[in-house]
Amino acid sequence: MFIIGELINGMYKNIGRAIQERHKAAIQECALAQIEAGADALDVNCGPGSRQPLHDMQWLVEAIQEVTDRTLVLDSSKPQVIEAGLKAAKNPAVINSTTADQQKLDVLIPLAAQYRARLIGLTISSKGIPQDKDQRLELAAAIVAACEGYGFPVDQLYLDPIVMPVNVAQAQMRGILEAIQEFKIISDPSPRAIVGLSNVSQGTCVRSLVNRTFLTMAVAYGLEGAILDPLDKELMDALITAELILNKNIYCDSYLDAYRKK
Amino acid sequence: MFIIGELINGMYKNIGRAIQERHKAAIQECALAQIEAGADALDVNCGPGSRQPLHDMQWLVEAIQEVTDRTLVLDSSKPQVIEAGLKAAKNPAVINSTTADQQKLDVLIPLAAQYRARLIGLTISSKGIPQDKDQRLELAAAIVAACEGYGFPVDQLYLDPIVMPVNVAQAQMRGILEAIQEFKIISDPSPRAIVGLSNVSQGTCVRSLVNRTFLTMAVAYGLEGAILDPLDKELMDALITAELILNKNIYCDSYLDAYRKK
Repeated sequence: MFIIGELINGMYKNIGRAIQERHKAAIQECALAQIEAGADALDVNCGPGSRQPLHDMQWLVEAIQEVTDRTLVLDSSKPQVIEAGLKAAKNPAVINSTTADQQKLDVLIPLAAQYRARLIGLTISSKGIPQDKDQRLELAAAIVAACEGYGFPVDQLYLDPIVMPVNVAQAQMRGILEAIQEFKIISDPSPRAIVGLSNVSQGTCVRSLVNRTFLTMAVAYGLEGAILDPLDKELMDALITAELILNKNIYCDSYLDAYRKK
Repeated sequence: MFIIGELINGMYKNIGRAIQERHKAAIQECALAQIEAGADALDVNCGPGSRQPLHDMQWLVEAIQEVTDRTLVLDSSKPQVIEAGLKAAKNPAVINSTTADQQKLDVLIPLAAQYRARLIGLTISSKGIPQDKDQRLELAAAIVAACEGYGFPVDQLYLDPIVMPVNVAQAQMRGILEAIQEFKIISDPSPRAIVGLSNVSQGTCVRSLVNRTFLTMAVAYGLEGAILDPLDKELMDALITAELILNKNIYCDSYLDAYRKK
């Protein structure tokens, strides 16, 4: 499982302030805490309030790289902001994200190829959020086809089915799980499935419980990556145990600690 | 989800003693506590130490029926003990269980039909525990065929894939989940899938976590019944949330309480 810590995001007050005040230590602490908790990579998002997002992205990437060489996941809806991050990143990064819109694909796939970055593709377009599994698979197929058109390796593509809040789109949840499973059969080699997890519990009263239950089910359906809060210990315990049950880590009595220390 | 409370079992010291001493109130308290926690039905097992299991089963059934009319799941490897329970039960019960051995099927299917009981069939035979999904499905098909042979309605049959401890049979877990999914396509109408849950965590150090993670995954694969400890609140929370995500209960902010009160 490719675990991406979600906490370096300017929409969180403490991070937003740290970006504005160029308070490097706060960002670096947040990076290290997420890695300590089991994150393989770190999402980097300047947040909606950023007035100079290109500079903010560059500063964030440089600040984080001073303390870790983990993969950075450059998170913006603006390709120029992502490119600012790609330029600053020492190691191959992940672009988060393109939509299925042709004009986005035509910019972001070549950018990913140029910087040897992996690419997250959201199964969404300017027409709106997909309403069922078939619409998700249709948009996924369009993203895969565009990657193939550019010669971009599809196994470097993560498809995100757009997880909706369970209290808004309860009838869609099963289709979202099935989309995760069926993304794999779109092409060979297969694209990977990823989710931005926390949205599933948006507006509910028991967020962590809903998050970890959905994540466990998604792992059972073949999920390979998740953007989540790795500091949620119960969430990480559930994830590690789900992977244990699928025989992806070897059982030992201290398997939870062993996973975190690996 | 058909939730069967597992706690009235003579293998637990307090219950074993209560049976021996004919301490009715202890059994009745255990029954009511499980129902309060969300059990739809109650497993009834005299335990391995019972010296007069026919009498013990009859006494247990009568004691429980004084305080509840929930379905009783008569749990014994001896058909005579099950029949003693069936005779005492006021309402249609569940037989727990037959194996795939013909001599067992020839006794227990007619017994289930005679008493209008549902039947749990374990995908196991005198040849031993199945080692993979195909062996589970083969034994499942034999049980279904026997039911059809006797004209016993297959939708009254619950198939149990035999859940192994994750620390013993880690490589089998995915096959067990897939068996749960594939039981449904053995016949039309479909048999139902059930598990005896607690075995999955036998010998592990974090039993509740392993139990609830496996259960959540099994629900994602279409599980319809489980024998479990309903007093494990985190387990029940996970189960209720998994069913919520699959749109089986309607979301409200207090969906956990609402489920338990239903």
